Amino acid sequence: MNAIILSIGDELTLGQTVDTNSAWISKELAARGCDVLGHVTVPDQQVAIAGAIASAVGNCDCLIVSGGLGPTADDLTRQALADVLNEPLEINHEWLTEMQRFFRQRGRPMPEANQIQAMIPRGATMLWNTCGTAAGIAAIGKGHSIRKPDAAAPLSFGAASRGHAGTVIFVVPGVPKEMKAMLTRDVFPDVEKRAGGAAILSRTLHTFGLGESSVAEMLGSLMNRDRNPSVGTTVSGGIVSLRLNSRFGSPALALEKLNETDAACRSKLGDLIFGADDQTLAAVVAELLTKSGGAIPTVTTAESCTGGLLAKMLTDIPGSSRYFREGFVTYANESKQRLLGVPAEMIEKFGAVSEPVAQAMAAGARRAANAVYALGITGIAGPDGGSEAKPVGMVCIALASEEGEAVRTFNFPGDREWIRDRSAKMALTMLRYKLLAKPLPF
Amino acid sequence: MNAIILSIGDELTLGQTVDTNSAWISKELAARGCDVLGHVTVPDQQVAIAGAIASAVGNCDCLIVSGGLGPTADDLTRQALADVLNEPLEINHEWLTEMQRFFRQRGRPMPEANQIQAMIPRGATMLWNTCGTAAGIAAIGKGHSIRKPDAAAPLSFGAASRGHAGTVIFVVPGVPKEMKAMLTRDVFPDVEKRAGGAAILSRTLHTFGLGESSVAEMLGSLMNRDRNPSVGTTVSGGIVSLRLNSRFGSPALALEKLNETDAACRSKLGDLIFGADDQTLAAVVAELLTKSGGAIPTVTTAESCTGGLLAKMLTDIPGSSRYFREGFVTYANESKQRLLGVPAEMIEKFGAVSEPVAQAMAAGARRAANAVYALGITGIAGPDGGSEAKPVGMVCIALASEEGEAVRTFNFPGDREWIRDRSAKMALTMLRYKLLAKPLPF
Repeated sequence: MNAIILSIGDELTLGQTVDTNSAWISKELAARGCDVLGHVTVPDQQVAIAGAIASAVGNCDCLIVSGGLGPTADDLTRQALADVLNEPLEINHEWLTEMQRFFRQRGRPMPEANQIQAMIPRGATMLWNTCGTAAGIAAIGKGHSIRKPDAAAPLSFGAASRGHAGTVIFVVPGVPKEMKAMLTRDVFPDVEKRAGGAAILSRTLHTFGLGESSVAEMLGSLMNRDRNPSVGTTVSGGIVSLRLNSRFGSPALALEKLNETDAACRSKLGDLIFGADDQTLAAVVAELLTKSGGAIPTVTTAESCTGGLLAKMLTDIPGSSRYFREGFVTYANESKQRLLGVPAEMIEKFGAVSEPVAQAMAAGARRAANAVYALGITGIAGPDGGSEAKPVGMVCIALASEEGEAVRTFNFPGDREWIRDRSAKMALTMLRYKLLAKPLPF
Repeated sequence: MNAIILSIGDELTLGQTVDTNSAWISKELAARGCDVLGHVTVPDQQVAIAGAIASAVGNCDCLIVSGGLGPTADDLTRQALADVLNEPLEINHEWLTEMQRFFRQRGRPMPEANQIQAMIPRGATMLWNTCGTAAGIAAIGKGHSIRKPDAAAPLSFGAASRGHAGTVIFVVPGVPKEMKAMLTRDVFPDVEKRAGGAAILSRTLHTFGLGESSVAEMLGSLMNRDRNPSVGTTVSGGIVSLRLNSRFGSPALALEKLNETDAACRSKLGDLIFGADDQTLAAVVAELLTKSGGAIPTVTTAESCTGGLLAKMLTDIPGSSRYFREGFVTYANESKQRLLGVPAEMIEKFGAVSEPVAQAMAAGARRAANAVYALGITGIAGPDGGSEAKPVGMVCIALASEEGEAVRTFNFPGDREWIRDRSAKMALTMLRYKLLAKPLPF
């Protein structure tokens, strides 16, 4: 089972947007035992799209096309597909009705332009879009007579050599959220069935707090290149993740070996691994807060340099109202004093970015919100405001509980966005270790 | 002048790495008047690489290949190129000497494996690598006899139709830093010369509040496919952006025409366009707040469903302490009462998600923070908590000023993350129109 991924869009070939769709789709296909032969990207030109589709057809088992399904004149994927299939575009009334309902619900009439989004080539199948107005298209061996691409088509792969019956074509929107939902629901199960057994299973384990090379050093021979399952590291947003890939002849064996390697990684890294796959730090903290079964402890926040980001992360989690009731963004010194009771003299003596002030912010927020835990963050996010003694990236984080206020000072690298992001994640990490009743390991 | 970009690597086709090289190269080529016909990505397999090179040759003026020049067994790009050119690989002694010097400088002998990095096809030109050990390769119309790809090559573009003399091939390392240095120094000047002065200039204009099709309808014939400069739309995070591309014979003319089209778009959309290129809504609000020259008005926030996201967006901007001093995250009803003075009876009578409560939150925050403006947000971000009367996505946003509390109710589509994001952006948009002294246009 193999596939080619085709992405459509001027913004891609002009370099205005980085194509993240192809990587995501490739990963998902690999996990289902499907080999990706390659990616192709062409601009919003009907002849280029048609050429690329026609060349892939017959050269792969499965062609996944994303993009060019919008309602505007520069969206030409469905026309190109109809060209290649040599079929007219026809209204799909089921989807037209759904779009009309969608707009009615939002209190406005459906714009004329959107009608094209309900059109698919005759004989093809409409794929439902649960989060947008562009229907997807599946063309599965319906016996269309494939048109060869024009000789001039610049990205053609040559005439189809195996005939259309051999290639299943799926067309999905380019908007990542819509693309992912549609492929996950309608396309991947089909691919998995066709792949018939062999499997590449993947899992990602996440750590926060140490750099990539330190994590790699702790993993040692687990990272050997020829190991199966393989273990690689990647970094994103300060999270160092281990990517485990397990390739075996059956899903059951691949899973068993994957679990063994997972356990081996955990025995090396311990609690540094906070979660797996889609788990975020905030989600893991939420689990720890709510899993005890007893009364759920409450958390509040007192933020200066992160400006609301920590509260935002905590409330990213559905149901966060069970433990998060209120938070304070105290950017100005006067706000820290009035809302959190931080003494003016303390700010004057130690500076707003100091461990005593972080502690007083956390203690004040805990008192004001009558919460079990409070996190206080004060630091220098930059680009300005740094000094020799207190450089940009210096951040003090305090965790107040009934045992008092633990506090730590960090020096985060990077720009304003990085520093704010790492600060909020470190505060969550401090709370996580507190809930685990363990000391921070760094 | 046109080009095809070919990227090599298993990590790309397995989806473990997002290909950012192609976007960067595309942008640089466009700025030099070179049309990018498409991107192709193939795994580290000699036959796949050779097939992709051979198919591109003859179908474009310039082929840029990146990746697969490392010293290990899975780096096969130079072998594949030699295959296609039908020439043997030969040691380039200049580069071999340089590599030996490189390793000697670092106090160790050159590993045997690195020797391959000095090999290039006979008749081709070596490109100097200033930051790594992989030499690049240029093959410029030397009269090689191109080998047609194997029939089985899965990503072939068919036999070369224009002959090798028409296509210049550049092969560069995949490591972004090495790739960028080599292209900038040795390749782009050549491309620019061949493009003969033509230029493609781009600009992006951003709108928020209306859907893509409504914006397209307002733009009318400006979006005609054959227009130059062209105008296309894209959507990301609820922001509908217009992408303007101006292709003319000289940079000066391209800029003049780009400015004309920019003005034409603004005359159709007016204040719906909030910014250009890298400008965010928060940055534009910051500009409006600070540009008057007089006392800078202060803004505060009272957030329920957005949980700190609005404050975070406002403080994304360096220097935001000039207008943002504090914000309130009041998730629980009791917090809305205690911190913002929202009457308990009001919450009971209208519900926490209601226009009166949004108004009372904004008014209370404005009073508590002694601010000029206050934004209050209360809504149902989901996934739970919706009802027939108040569905998930219903959000009330109030803007308090000395003139009282304006309020609007919105129904945002999408999931929790979308609803929270759109709510915060709509609050910024309400403030933006207030600062423009204009009514919301939707």
